[in-house]
Amino acid sequence: MFHDRHTILVESIKRLLRRNALPHLKKIVRKTHAADLADVFRQIGLAEQKRLFSLMNDVEQQGLLLSELEESIFLEFIREMSVDDIVRILDEMPNDDVADLIGLMPPETGTAVLEKMEKEGSEEVEGLLRYSDDTAGGIMTPDFVALSQDDTAKEAIESLQKEHRDVEMPFYLYVVDDLKRLVGVISLRQLVVVKPETRLRDIMNPELVSVQTSMDQEEVAKIVARYDILAVPVVDETGVLEGIVTVDDVIDIFRMEATEDILKMAGVGEMFVETQTILGGIRIRLPWLFASCLGGILAFYVISGFEDTLAKYAYLAAFMPVIAGMGGNVGTQSSTIVVRGLATGRLSLGDFWKVIGKELLVGLFLGIVYGTLIGLVAELQYSIFMLNIVVALAMISSMTIAASMGALVPMGLARMKIDPAVATGPFVTTSTDVITAFLYFTIATKLLNM
Amino acid sequence: MFHDRHTILVESIKRLLRRNALPHLKKIVRKTHAADLADVFRQIGLAEQKRLFSLMNDVEQQGLLLSELEESIFLEFIREMSVDDIVRILDEMPNDDVADLIGLMPPETGTAVLEKMEKEGSEEVEGLLRYSDDTAGGIMTPDFVALSQDDTAKEAIESLQKEHRDVEMPFYLYVVDDLKRLVGVISLRQLVVVKPETRLRDIMNPELVSVQTSMDQEEVAKIVARYDILAVPVVDETGVLEGIVTVDDVIDIFRMEATEDILKMAGVGEMFVETQTILGGIRIRLPWLFASCLGGILAFYVISGFEDTLAKYAYLAAFMPVIAGMGGNVGTQSSTIVVRGLATGRLSLGDFWKVIGKELLVGLFLGIVYGTLIGLVAELQYSIFMLNIVVALAMISSMTIAASMGALVPMGLARMKIDPAVATGPFVTTSTDVITAFLYFTIATKLLNM
Repeated sequence: MFHDRHTILVESIKRLLRRNALPHLKKIVRKTHAADLADVFRQIGLAEQKRLFSLMNDVEQQGLLLSELEESIFLEFIREMSVDDIVRILDEMPNDDVADLIGLMPPETGTAVLEKMEKEGSEEVEGLLRYSDDTAGGIMTPDFVALSQDDTAKEAIESLQKEHRDVEMPFYLYVVDDLKRLVGVISLRQLVVVKPETRLRDIMNPELVSVQTSMDQEEVAKIVARYDILAVPVVDETGVLEGIVTVDDVIDIFRMEATEDILKMAGVGEMFVETQTILGGIRIRLPWLFASCLGGILAFYVISGFEDTLAKYAYLAAFMPVIAGMGGNVGTQSSTIVVRGLATGRLSLGDFWKVIGKELLVGLFLGIVYGTLIGLVAELQYSIFMLNIVVALAMISSMTIAASMGALVPMGLARMKIDPAVATGPFVTTSTDVITAFLYFTIATKLLNM
Repeated sequence: MFHDRHTILVESIKRLLRRNALPHLKKIVRKTHAADLADVFRQIGLAEQKRLFSLMNDVEQQGLLLSELEESIFLEFIREMSVDDIVRILDEMPNDDVADLIGLMPPETGTAVLEKMEKEGSEEVEGLLRYSDDTAGGIMTPDFVALSQDDTAKEAIESLQKEHRDVEMPFYLYVVDDLKRLVGVISLRQLVVVKPETRLRDIMNPELVSVQTSMDQEEVAKIVARYDILAVPVVDETGVLEGIVTVDDVIDIFRMEATEDILKMAGVGEMFVETQTILGGIRIRLPWLFASCLGGILAFYVISGFEDTLAKYAYLAAFMPVIAGMGGNVGTQSSTIVVRGLATGRLSLGDFWKVIGKELLVGLFLGIVYGTLIGLVAELQYSIFMLNIVVALAMISSMTIAASMGALVPMGLARMKIDPAVATGPFVTTSTDVITAFLYFTIATKLLNM
């Protein structure tokens, strides 16, 4: 239902833009959420984007829209904007979003923008730009509430009313010591319930989860999800509270990482944006395909070594696709289970041999089922008893080896600290192809020439 | 870093359990988060689970642990618990979690538990049990703050202090009319800033996103993520506010759906739990493999129709794996991009022919690159000019067709409202295999016999 309403909205804005129905457009645009306008943006040309953008007279809405855009669309759009116009919008945005956008800009533009921004904001943004994009430091926001552990509850409430009005949603109130090091957390409710003169150090909860600025964003996201918290505090190496990572960023991380994992497994890059254009798609897909092509060529040399057998028993060739295909499929299944299991924490490296042994048994059993089936097909078509045995044995060994390789490769890569999602695919299919071809023709040569 | 600390914790609890070092264990268990204890639970036997559980004397921690467990582990564990013990724990849990757990129990146990639970809670739980698990109604919590639009700000603040103390985190205060229909939302801050006698109807924001109880949970999650909100209100068909879905549930949905999509694409079921045992893994994987096996058998019949060609030109067989493999790989890449693009909303069905056309061009270009490469390999090995042409043409057509099929199949399935993640895999590989085999041998027979 939501989907339909959303599609209708996007389509009608596009139609009104084409017709240039400005008064009507203005009304709709101002009532539409920036996230929805970003969808329209993705589907229209630069001239129309500019028209749409100028109809939004709320600077905050414009800022939200910009932070929703993909890198390539954003860069294209701001290329013709003046530095002053950019600054006007960024000054109204949260500093973590500003840092993200400046990080995307060409260096000269970024520097020019930072120089013109309001002083306080630009200093905070420069602080954030020190951290790399995919770490806790890179995704944290510096808008949080920190109270001194020596303050009383009354003083804390007063400072909340005065100083922290800009913090949008103060879920957690963090407590710090004299050196600004994080020492505890309290809730707004606790603050109100206790006697006004109570010191925060006496009521705070000192057992809290925090992460370091350098922690990978995926780890940060897992912690927020694991403990069902709305934000996690980020500290530097000395324990000084530097910012917080909030749950809405965590959602974005999970969605992005899941997409990345899926795309990486098929060798189509990490980011969707790279596959948008035809040339981009080709560039991203070439190397992965090259790896499997090398494997295929290796398989070619293996098979051409059996040319005599092939010339004598031409029907052998007809079984190759189904045997190699079934091996490839069961290998993909095993590697998918293992790669995803490692990513979600369902499987641990401590279970190395247990996991591989389990996949081997699954492959063996499935091999027996489909080996029997393909043996029957051979019997129906050729009625050569030894051929039935050959194709059945080849299927069984292909599926058993493929399933074991499908588990072994990602587990081994993970143990060597290589991302299993990236390299598993070509490795598994390639090695399965080569081993399958070799076994099939070796078995065939031996048994049929008996 | 987190990962290491977490692994050490889990391992040391397991070790202490084996040694039965109770006093030490007790101390650690009470300081450990239920989510971490759930990880230990997954890795130990029933007797040790019971021991661990009895060491947690905080009923709330026990409840949290239960709601972290997978269905199979949970069912195994409660099988030997008395109804009274179960009720004692559930009475301390949030009602949405209670409803989830009761939904998992065997019907008799569920009914017995509901009868013994505290009255107020059990009624709410029964209300929640009406909705199916994967809808907004099934995942919402009935703990929210609803204020009457006729109340003044002062009355609202008073009722917040009195009635809603049990609502853990009141991010949003919802406003309802006399019939309990949702009409707006206000923030705690607004309530404090305005004059005490102001009516809520005059300060509330009437433009708010809400979802219906029957909406699919994935749609709900997308809405929460899209608008960066911490909770979305859930209403029934008449607009009456029934509950809220909070952001922590949304995270769980995204993680689960991403895993589901990945597993479905490789034909290994939807849920991880099904692949835990060897027999479970086999049962889940058989049907998908059967579909591709049928395709392989079809390819077999196609190829065996060209037996004369094969007998005459035995070397043709050696090129089959690399040609079919490259087609299969490029088809998987295309279908991955399209399936994931549809799931994340990056691609829309409106772009049907544009997407397919783009993939066709990518496949054609990649086909020319790898067709040339494989033609060179053929030249080096056999130096038969016509053979070079045959394998290059076969590679080009295989990759072009595979890439187009990889886009066409999921787009077509989505258009027919069939989940593209489930059915795409076998369809694409199977049709690619058959078409590739047919084209390869047709081209070969024509050109080599010239």
